[in-house]
Amino acid sequence: MDNEEQLPEKSMPNISVDNLIFAMQDGQLKVLLVKYKQGLAANKWGLIGHWVHQDESLDDAASRVISATTGVENFHLDQLGAFGKVDRYPGRRIITVVYYALVRFDEANIHQGENTHEVAWFNVHDVPELIFDHKDILNKCLGQLKYKVRHEPIGFSLLPEKFTLLQLQEIYEAILDKKLDKPNFRRKIQKMNLLINCKEKQTAVAHRAATLYRFDVHVYEKLKEFGFNFEY
Amino acid sequence: MDNEEQLPEKSMPNISVDNLIFAMQDGQLKVLLVKYKQGLAANKWGLIGHWVHQDESLDDAASRVISATTGVENFHLDQLGAFGKVDRYPGRRIITVVYYALVRFDEANIHQGENTHEVAWFNVHDVPELIFDHKDILNKCLGQLKYKVRHEPIGFSLLPEKFTLLQLQEIYEAILDKKLDKPNFRRKIQKMNLLINCKEKQTAVAHRAATLYRFDVHVYEKLKEFGFNFEY
Repeated sequence: MDNEEQLPEKSMPNISVDNLIFAMQDGQLKVLLVKYKQGLAANKWGLIGHWVHQDESLDDAASRVISATTGVENFHLDQLGAFGKVDRYPGRRIITVVYYALVRFDEANIHQGENTHEVAWFNVHDVPELIFDHKDILNKCLGQLKYKVRHEPIGFSLLPEKFTLLQLQEIYEAILDKKLDKPNFRRKIQKMNLLINCKEKQTAVAHRAATLYRFDVHVYEKLKEFGFNFEY
Repeated sequence: MDNEEQLPEKSMPNISVDNLIFAMQDGQLKVLLVKYKQGLAANKWGLIGHWVHQDESLDDAASRVISATTGVENFHLDQLGAFGKVDRYPGRRIITVVYYALVRFDEANIHQGENTHEVAWFNVHDVPELIFDHKDILNKCLGQLKYKVRHEPIGFSLLPEKFTLLQLQEIYEAILDKKLDKPNFRRKIQKMNLLINCKEKQTAVAHRAATLYRFDVHVYEKLKEFGFNFEY
């Protein structure tokens, strides 16, 4: 993050949170980036960050920033880790703790922050130049998502309640960054017994409407605990 | 960590690293703990921590502390994450970044730090009362190890170069905290093609000497990258 001229007294002087907010749009995995108004990062794109207040936990700081930017209150939130190379931030020693959130694109209602003059979604594989070590952080997070999506059913956090198998496959393709064989994908997913057939079809398409599914929360909770294996 | 009276000028005032150092001894997973001499934690057990110097990265701070305590220079090191509840440290706002290291017991040569008067290995399932949030941190790390050992071949970092299948099984049992069926375990492990038969037997035992194996570094590197699935 960068808005050092705005450091409020109630914040810790050398610890920030930076957040990667992901959503699926048009079959692409997008990440939300901001262009800052002032400070070292003026007019440059970066992750959405802020200082950590003295009276809030790191998790709360991340949630505060993510909710303020997206309007979403409930989302999958994970900590990626702390980044603390000596020279990561110009002229000062700043440690940043990075979180990533998975949100449903349609639920996000993007708000401009007072320190930013642009907020936009970018395809994760086609981002502009980023400030500081933010590109390294993004790359590390994409690696983490690849790992996670094969071992935890995190993809569902990006979907609406009812979805098609194609939408689900697109998430795996976007995160794993490769095309998957359709019959093979469906066989593997069905084998996990994660899906419940809604017995209804898509309504927004003109023809060849696909079947809608929702995921089985009960099985999902179990898989979150024990992990699963989705080999690709 | 706690040695606030010793905070050197060259350190960041509100960021520490705390380290969980694990090793296998007598079939048990052990964690290294210290008893501090002074400060808030005087005479209490805790994780091995220290302040982060202004001129060293977080990773380097963790490595410095781990090497100074164990004498080991090369070890499996991972960051568990940053812990930053508001009241985690009495009276001051301190964020701690936690690392865990897997070392080979025989290679560790434990050194007393100048701020500690005891350093000892404890069975991870039978630790004394710990300072601050260190018990929560240990529990979180044990959960992480359970997850990791099923998806990455991290267990080998705890073994000597040549080991028996029983030694390997003991690691999985200690980390997963349950007994595993011997033939079943061997079948699953062999299936991964991770092991090379050394064509020699243990020498230190009187009778029924077991075959020694070493792990296949080439396959290991691949598995580290792509993950594997060890279902238990």
